[in-house]
Amino acid sequence: MIPLLLLSLSSPSFSILRDPAGFHSGPIDLSSTKTGYKGYKYQEEFLSGVPIDHFAFTTNQTFSLRYFFNDEHFQCQKTILFYTGNEGKLEGFAENTGFMWDIAPEFEAAVIFAEHRFYGKSQPFGNDSYSSIDKLGFLSSEQALADFAFLIEHLKTKRIKCAQHSSVIAFGGSYGGMLSAWMRIKYPHLVQGAIAASAPVFWFFDSGIEEDIYDRIVTRTATSSGCELKAVTSGFEAISNLGKTDNGRDFLNKLFVLEEKSSLIKPEDTNFLKAFIKEVFESIVMVDYPYPTSFLSPLPGWPVKLACSFLKNVSKNDEDAARSLFNVVNLYYNYTGSTPSFCANPDVCSGAFAALGDPLGWPWQTCTEMVMPLCSSGYPNDFFWKDCPYTEKTAIDYCTKTFGSIGFTRGILRPKWATRNYGINSFPTATNIVFSNGFLDPWSGGGWSKENKKEGSLIGIIIEEGAHHYDLRGTHSNDTQEIKDVRDMERGYIKDWVKEYETKWKEEKKKWKESKENATRSFH
Amino acid sequence: MIPLLLLSLSSPSFSILRDPAGFHSGPIDLSSTKTGYKGYKYQEEFLSGVPIDHFAFTTNQTFSLRYFFNDEHFQCQKTILFYTGNEGKLEGFAENTGFMWDIAPEFEAAVIFAEHRFYGKSQPFGNDSYSSIDKLGFLSSEQALADFAFLIEHLKTKRIKCAQHSSVIAFGGSYGGMLSAWMRIKYPHLVQGAIAASAPVFWFFDSGIEEDIYDRIVTRTATSSGCELKAVTSGFEAISNLGKTDNGRDFLNKLFVLEEKSSLIKPEDTNFLKAFIKEVFESIVMVDYPYPTSFLSPLPGWPVKLACSFLKNVSKNDEDAARSLFNVVNLYYNYTGSTPSFCANPDVCSGAFAALGDPLGWPWQTCTEMVMPLCSSGYPNDFFWKDCPYTEKTAIDYCTKTFGSIGFTRGILRPKWATRNYGINSFPTATNIVFSNGFLDPWSGGGWSKENKKEGSLIGIIIEEGAHHYDLRGTHSNDTQEIKDVRDMERGYIKDWVKEYETKWKEEKKKWKESKENATRSFH
Repeated sequence: MIPLLLLSLSSPSFSILRDPAGFHSGPIDLSSTKTGYKGYKYQEEFLSGVPIDHFAFTTNQTFSLRYFFNDEHFQCQKTILFYTGNEGKLEGFAENTGFMWDIAPEFEAAVIFAEHRFYGKSQPFGNDSYSSIDKLGFLSSEQALADFAFLIEHLKTKRIKCAQHSSVIAFGGSYGGMLSAWMRIKYPHLVQGAIAASAPVFWFFDSGIEEDIYDRIVTRTATSSGCELKAVTSGFEAISNLGKTDNGRDFLNKLFVLEEKSSLIKPEDTNFLKAFIKEVFESIVMVDYPYPTSFLSPLPGWPVKLACSFLKNVSKNDEDAARSLFNVVNLYYNYTGSTPSFCANPDVCSGAFAALGDPLGWPWQTCTEMVMPLCSSGYPNDFFWKDCPYTEKTAIDYCTKTFGSIGFTRGILRPKWATRNYGINSFPTATNIVFSNGFLDPWSGGGWSKENKKEGSLIGIIIEEGAHHYDLRGTHSNDTQEIKDVRDMERGYIKDWVKEYETKWKEEKKKWKESKENATRSFH
Repeated sequence: MIPLLLLSLSSPSFSILRDPAGFHSGPIDLSSTKTGYKGYKYQEEFLSGVPIDHFAFTTNQTFSLRYFFNDEHFQCQKTILFYTGNEGKLEGFAENTGFMWDIAPEFEAAVIFAEHRFYGKSQPFGNDSYSSIDKLGFLSSEQALADFAFLIEHLKTKRIKCAQHSSVIAFGGSYGGMLSAWMRIKYPHLVQGAIAASAPVFWFFDSGIEEDIYDRIVTRTATSSGCELKAVTSGFEAISNLGKTDNGRDFLNKLFVLEEKSSLIKPEDTNFLKAFIKEVFESIVMVDYPYPTSFLSPLPGWPVKLACSFLKNVSKNDEDAARSLFNVVNLYYNYTGSTPSFCANPDVCSGAFAALGDPLGWPWQTCTEMVMPLCSSGYPNDFFWKDCPYTEKTAIDYCTKTFGSIGFTRGILRPKWATRNYGINSFPTATNIVFSNGFLDPWSGGGWSKENKKEGSLIGIIIEEGAHHYDLRGTHSNDTQEIKDVRDMERGYIKDWVKEYETKWKEEKKKWKESKENATRSFH
């Protein structure tokens, strides 16, 4: 498997911005593990004629948006369950959002997964889509939402028979959860409610986000799963120490397979190694599910607990401390034993990134409007090292380096736009959204609320034993009682929203008919 | 004054799409009449750095947006009254929206008028702004709303001292009313309420609009003001009859000053003349105010009544019938007597359009997303002649003719987009909007409601004796009791919205502080 692309600002050789879904990190080999995946059936379809630019009229260019379609349970005017695809190819979302498949029969619903433009097979300019900012510039959340609006119209009026008065419920996890919430907020006439799972909707400069919250939660989850804080910090110190001598670097190289020849390792490579290990921690807590999954990489149930079993005590010497961290890395990348030798350094090991779909998609989004502050404040807040503060300059430096060659310039980055457009730290008129967050999941730090909360029909749910959008996964025999209850609640809310809509449109139709008749009468 | 630019589909020589505000039809000479204008004082300012494209990142180009600023009554954290400028230069809105100026002292409010991009002095590409669709394409309602969001942010955080927690109330009339409502709908975190006066928010193909409603209301207003239906229809018939003979055309030419030489008038020119007169009716009912105004042209109070005094009876012969219609035209264009000879034919009389600011702005908008069906079904529904139906093809033919040379092609016109984006025939989650409409005003036919109505905090008000956004005008000694009551209601709603916001942000601030403290405690 491929490493999760995380922002490791301390590592000059490895600065790719963190991705909330962790999802573009490669194909998901579901056959290799026994997960919630049940072989969901869907047709792959493409909607042609989608405007490349919905909000300006400088061009009439269109493209084809991919979506997955299943209407085997659909009954006339019943519900459409609509996944608002995020930063990755669509298959992964369809296969890891079992909740939608599970409830489709009950709601007599069609199941739709819509791909996000510029990911997977939804490339507006084909293979050239990422070639320059006059093309890649059309990758934005607003355009993606408008694509979804366009697709919903198509589904209701053309594709699905007898769906003109169907309610539409949006689902999404992570950035997809942001999209599902925003879809309800910006297009409430098209979408009647949204399950926004693990959506860091307030992870922005001016939303009151604590820039170091991610790694603080990583540390909280790990220490509550048995990791001894000092065991981790001393592990990182050990790597720094070993990097200072030839023998130490030789040891590290043999252990972590950094280079073919150990002589190639330079002292500063320990920074890279530390960042690489940091990422493993940052990733594994996102997927701390109670049963084996392969969402980011094939892992056992409660993987953090297992990882922390190597870090219960401070090691006696640097070699042992490094080995403890290696065990965590090895668990994350080689749990199935099918990756006996992995290469930690993508700059050196060719092919490591070959399987990536759109590795620059999410980074691009973080260089335009999804500017989400992330950094570590170090011990004692977290078990890493200080690289805060995260500033606009941090982002601009990274973006200039990464996208300067295709036309990025300072003005492209607009750190305040997402909040100006969607809401700074509240959604004053929004209704019918569940914002669920897992307490174990670092992304919960920027969610709609950090506690269970009800504000009208906006519902904040904290899943105590939950990792990243656990609630969206399919039923599993090892599911916790808590997640069963949460999914029941979500089903209940969806029922309410559907009923509300059905009642309303019937009333509205009646009223509209009456007012039309009255109007006609009053004119002549 | 310049003729209102109306869609006259029957006239091949004069097919410019109708403009809800009627506003780009030239400069408003307020000095010439005694209207509600009180010499409002404002500073002209420009906000630089506004992105030309808010929703894509293909360019970092920016432009300067013009706005008018007055904070003489503003008190710390009090309200910002914000006019969402529509299709015309800003001065006219500032000078004809006395309501905002009148209530500013009571609300201790700042008064802001924001110009719509591509109108007045807010030209993103200077004099080239209208030169090709790769520039003019950035003229869209969504981009304009985003400009306003950008400006509101600037006002609250930079321009106005002590306004960070100020409530913002949006105001607009006609298309500006659509924008003020949409501003509340799409940016409820930035705008706490909206007065959307005479906003035809449901004047779209799929909103259930009756395509012939405009002229039906024109006819209703005129006949209820004393016009005899048959007197009008026989007048138009008379013009057709006169056009058939040399003598008749000579008579018409002398009466209406169509050409310098009567021999130039061709039989088919009577179609142009009829369309020209039709427009006068279509315009004068929009501005049927109880006192003299010069919003579209200088007119006396209750001008429709005066116009209809010429049309109480069917004339005895064609000449008299034509003279009756001429009297209406003369009233509309020459009430002050300062335009003793006017030229009805802009294709022939040079200079007639010289004073226009951005005459192609609104037509362009109708050729992209503001595709508003308009046609006449003729007698007995209205006193014109049948040119319905209005179809997508009607629009495309017009747009190809008008904008083909700068790049318009079929795919640019997106008749369903506005409703997909803003709401088809309801705004399910919107709150705090007054949709006021005048019963005399033809645009009321596509308003949010055709009767007084309350749906939560969405308020529909029908002003029985009201023309186009009468409520937005300043206090006048001849104001009807009804309009005084309506303005009182609107002031009351604004008070509620302001209070709601002030209460809420104080609570939110408290909660947010608490949750931050709790969060900090729970981490370490």
